[in-house]
Amino acid sequence: MTTPAPSAPDTTTLRYEQAGVNYELIDPLKVSAQRAAAATATQLGMHGFRELAASRGESAYVVDVGPFHLASIVECLGSKALVADEMARLTGRSYYAGIAQDTIAMAVNDLITVGATPLVVQAYWATGGSDWFGDAARAQALVDGWQRACEACGVAWGGGETPALAGIVEAGRIDLAAACTGIVNPKTRLSLGERLGAGDAIVLLDSSGIHANGLSLARALVPRLPQGYLTPVRPGLAYGDALLAPTTLYAPVTEALWRAGIVPHYCANITGHGWRKLLRHPGRFGYRIHTLPPLPPVLAFMQQHAHLDDHEAYGTLNMGAGFALFVAAADAARVVEVAQRLGIGARVAGEVLAGPKQLTIEPLGVHYGEDALHLR
Amino acid sequence: MTTPAPSAPDTTTLRYEQAGVNYELIDPLKVSAQRAAAATATQLGMHGFRELAASRGESAYVVDVGPFHLASIVECLGSKALVADEMARLTGRSYYAGIAQDTIAMAVNDLITVGATPLVVQAYWATGGSDWFGDAARAQALVDGWQRACEACGVAWGGGETPALAGIVEAGRIDLAAACTGIVNPKTRLSLGERLGAGDAIVLLDSSGIHANGLSLARALVPRLPQGYLTPVRPGLAYGDALLAPTTLYAPVTEALWRAGIVPHYCANITGHGWRKLLRHPGRFGYRIHTLPPLPPVLAFMQQHAHLDDHEAYGTLNMGAGFALFVAAADAARVVEVAQRLGIGARVAGEVLAGPKQLTIEPLGVHYGEDALHLR
Repeated sequence: MTTPAPSAPDTTTLRYEQAGVNYELIDPLKVSAQRAAAATATQLGMHGFRELAASRGESAYVVDVGPFHLASIVECLGSKALVADEMARLTGRSYYAGIAQDTIAMAVNDLITVGATPLVVQAYWATGGSDWFGDAARAQALVDGWQRACEACGVAWGGGETPALAGIVEAGRIDLAAACTGIVNPKTRLSLGERLGAGDAIVLLDSSGIHANGLSLARALVPRLPQGYLTPVRPGLAYGDALLAPTTLYAPVTEALWRAGIVPHYCANITGHGWRKLLRHPGRFGYRIHTLPPLPPVLAFMQQHAHLDDHEAYGTLNMGAGFALFVAAADAARVVEVAQRLGIGARVAGEVLAGPKQLTIEPLGVHYGEDALHLR
Repeated sequence: MTTPAPSAPDTTTLRYEQAGVNYELIDPLKVSAQRAAAATATQLGMHGFRELAASRGESAYVVDVGPFHLASIVECLGSKALVADEMARLTGRSYYAGIAQDTIAMAVNDLITVGATPLVVQAYWATGGSDWFGDAARAQALVDGWQRACEACGVAWGGGETPALAGIVEAGRIDLAAACTGIVNPKTRLSLGERLGAGDAIVLLDSSGIHANGLSLARALVPRLPQGYLTPVRPGLAYGDALLAPTTLYAPVTEALWRAGIVPHYCANITGHGWRKLLRHPGRFGYRIHTLPPLPPVLAFMQQHAHLDDHEAYGTLNMGAGFALFVAAADAARVVEVAQRLGIGARVAGEVLAGPKQLTIEPLGVHYGEDALHLR
């Protein structure tokens, strides 16, 4: 990756597909893999256990192991490390403490959607060669950030892998992922969506910025910007720095909710596909959004420079909402309080309606139908 | 990677370090990461749980969650996929069903060492671009092999990640890893080594070939071979095909041992560092090997062509022993029977002695002292 030269303004819309991810090639494999994976569920029977089939297609896989449920996941950071590498080249700073938090957030924020308490994180740090660790300051930032993020989530860092994969991972790069295991304990904390109903409130928790989804689009935008990554998104804040704000960790909120006696009916981690993730629940429900969260400057900047209309922007990026809690209307105000006490902005943003399945963002006049999200 | 032209015989010794892995750069980071990880163990207290500190430095991380212990791990395949890619180019065949088994073996064979029953595997398949999945036959082989390996291990395939990571993973390549979660149930199955004692027998389970460690060395050897990967290791078996024999899955053995009422005192998965892994237990014990397993032709071939003496070969490669079970001497013959009934070659190969810490392979006159393996 190189810093682009300033160029004439490009006023065409930049879409995610143009940023290099071709879902038409990945999706048939995903469907095949999902079928094969589902067929293995019977293996649990020989151990006296069973899967919760409703967790297939959700953000974490859940198995009933008797006294509680076991939840597990592996998640990749994606391409955000490429932004960190380029910004390090431009500024001389290391961004890997934040990158560590991003990686853990990808796994932990998914795991908690099912009602699980995350317990153990395993690190997967695959480099293009041992020399990646020759930059001791960068390596130490990764270690420190990983430790702090584990502590913020109340998880033990169990260990991990640091393979040197020359010929597979590009020279000078690192492929980061995290595996997380947790338990749903007691089982009544399970939030796979059985309890979701019309009249429930939608509480949106603020994001800190782009988090770790949409980075391919963010990177594809750089050649259009007069100073590349150093273009200010507001005075004093460069685009690259703004992109690298670490992803908010939401596990403290879900744990505090449990201590406050509140069990969400459903949760959605707002990652790829942006607000379309609000359509994740398989049931026939409508979702009416009446109040928007504040828009992080970096996302407003991206929307403007990629020439995305609201439908495209909210269907791709988190646009200020990092995590959605679907809760009993009577609990909604307390949910907001619990999050805010932890320093995470939150608001009652909408409500669940009887079907048909659709999402309406009323303040923007934006609408997504039932075909807007295919995850199963 | 290209197929090498035939060249003059090279009679110098090819060591692992020359094959591209520099542990001097990785090891300081590993030590720092291990300390930071250990510091996070206190996080479990807030959930009412505790880590089993003895599992740090072992092959899987173990947490006491009350009714049983939870074990988890993430493991990388390493560079074996590069051999599969080159052999596919040379022969037109797909080797990814075997590669899937290798990847799962890396995780499952480690997890079972602590006495855990593996329950869930998560797939991590990071490609250099969506086009990796455009080769539908290769993608389907990966899916099919993954499913079959899960079924062979009695685990459910919970899901996973298939990120397209252009700019991080090399174009046309795939970075494969597996995360595995299991439970030690009942807790008396725990085999972290407290019960190991002088007089215990060492049962070695046969390997199927190189498994998935030592592939950097195996690949570095190719330019020395007259027909590269197509050089026969014995009539009718090309070097590349022999390398790609899938790793043996040992979970059926450890589960069958439990059903037979046998709890190993300790286990070692023989991966990187070859037989030096027999020195893994932290205690002051000696290990006397009196009987060798049959040497797979591909490993005999590698030893010969890399000009490794026995000390180097057994200290680097598995040399026919894929997994070691340290058991009460009275159980040893039955352990062998249980493995053989499952089609896995096994033999009582040695015994545990009172210290000092050392490994002696008597039939070869090979000796490793306590400094031969540093994992903690």
